[in-house]
Amino acid sequence: MDKIIIEARVNELATRKGNPHVPFLPGEIIADAKACHDEGAAIVHYHGRADDGAPDHSPAFYLETNAGIRAQSDILIHPTLGYVANDADALGRFAAVEEMMKSAETAPDFAPMDCGSVNVDWWNPEEGRYDTTDLIYKNSTGTLMHFAERIAHYGLKPYLVSWNVSFTRQIEQFLKMGVLREPAYICFCMTDEIIFAGHPGTEAGLDAHTAFLPEGFRTVWTVVNYKGDLFELTEKIIRSGGHISIGLGDYAYRDGARNMTNAQVIAKVVAQAQSLGRDVASAAETRDILKMPTVRIAA
Amino acid sequence: MDKIIIEARVNELATRKGNPHVPFLPGEIIADAKACHDEGAAIVHYHGRADDGAPDHSPAFYLETNAGIRAQSDILIHPTLGYVANDADALGRFAAVEEMMKSAETAPDFAPMDCGSVNVDWWNPEEGRYDTTDLIYKNSTGTLMHFAERIAHYGLKPYLVSWNVSFTRQIEQFLKMGVLREPAYICFCMTDEIIFAGHPGTEAGLDAHTAFLPEGFRTVWTVVNYKGDLFELTEKIIRSGGHISIGLGDYAYRDGARNMTNAQVIAKVVAQAQSLGRDVASAAETRDILKMPTVRIAA
Repeated sequence: MDKIIIEARVNELATRKGNPHVPFLPGEIIADAKACHDEGAAIVHYHGRADDGAPDHSPAFYLETNAGIRAQSDILIHPTLGYVANDADALGRFAAVEEMMKSAETAPDFAPMDCGSVNVDWWNPEEGRYDTTDLIYKNSTGTLMHFAERIAHYGLKPYLVSWNVSFTRQIEQFLKMGVLREPAYICFCMTDEIIFAGHPGTEAGLDAHTAFLPEGFRTVWTVVNYKGDLFELTEKIIRSGGHISIGLGDYAYRDGARNMTNAQVIAKVVAQAQSLGRDVASAAETRDILKMPTVRIAA
Repeated sequence: MDKIIIEARVNELATRKGNPHVPFLPGEIIADAKACHDEGAAIVHYHGRADDGAPDHSPAFYLETNAGIRAQSDILIHPTLGYVANDADALGRFAAVEEMMKSAETAPDFAPMDCGSVNVDWWNPEEGRYDTTDLIYKNSTGTLMHFAERIAHYGLKPYLVSWNVSFTRQIEQFLKMGVLREPAYICFCMTDEIIFAGHPGTEAGLDAHTAFLPEGFRTVWTVVNYKGDLFELTEKIIRSGGHISIGLGDYAYRDGARNMTNAQVIAKVVAQAQSLGRDVASAAETRDILKMPTVRIAA
């Protein structure tokens, strides 16, 4: 069984109400990336955030943050394209990555492709109603093909997010077309509690993803529980040969009464993996497992 | 186990290249509805089509067709809201139904709600590529709440289509909110061969739907295989207590070298259900199984 790849998902759109350790600004994200690397994370995923926590998708944010992360460790960098907060056309959504590719110091290692479209409204469990009613995360086939072309052009690794079986089937078609290359790195994005866009973060929810991994193609899969406690599934994932993507961006993890830091969440995953006999992949080993290409800086 | 509800899906967007018996015009649909009723179908679902097969979502088409179907039998009527061919706003997409509700002769019994959003591009298996790259079937939460309100207002039964687990989870939230009422009638729309938007039409594909039926709510479920052969699953569905929605709209069904008619497809399902000991529900029995409300004509 491959060594386990652990990705730190440090902030997403999470507020500090649930956990005050969520990093927003470049310096905070850079510090968290280093701390998570030192605990065993091979990949860091982050969203640009303003000091009040609002999304900040300016290229400048990503350039500063990527350069700062690179200067401190070899952790692999996986930025966002902006989720529903960036509802531009395909070129606009990829613009920040194009800027990042102008220098080796600021280039990431992955770029995400959420391989389909899905309603992503926020549920309010106290009120028993939706807080939003118009959020469709739209990723058309044409937009995804643009992303795939640019990702391949730059030698980045596509980080393929699947929210449901429809997404996984689209990934399979892209593999058949050669739009994507093996091994496909697929993240099963499960959701709970305040968003029901993905499968539930249960054993059944995971089984209903892995049953549809593209046949006849080499795939590597990791799991997220967005807004749910992924530790309910980590033992199953570790034993099944899957990988783990986790952090305060997804869930306000606690250890008893104490708010955990991202680094503490990573340390807990590492300890569980090792206790189950599975070693943790370094950043270099992750590049090898995922057969990552060589990044090409823009001319 | 309830008697089995059989729905004839007579035309959808199917061409006559695959099977020349696909009905397009009102008179053709009316004749097929009667023939399917006589073989045991309790529900008929159709799309308005011009004589060249192009979509025709003019209210006049639906008024004429519904009235003609009503005049010949008590088969329950389930029109479309236009699928991706009708990309209007929520009011615009429901406009044809509002027109149908002005008279008992033209009122349908169901109105559909596809409970989520999904990419629905067409795959070209000969060329190994997508023929379309921009088709997102967009059904926002707000649009669905508008449909649900109007459907309840008129005493119609919502026909809840689920293309993947994300859709089923949205149905569950609507049940929690009271936006939908029990029993929820859910159609698992599986897809094959030239569209990969739904689960595959396999036992695993069906299991990955039924595993997520909303807990704590009464549900009744039926199954479609859009562009695949549903007969590969009908025995499992019949034995599992599910219902069957099938017709030339989905697949160019053949009996050996002979192109089947919609009525012949229905007769084949009826024979299989009876051979497995499951009786077929009449239209009146279907109203009872689904606890269908009384239709209220617009004032």
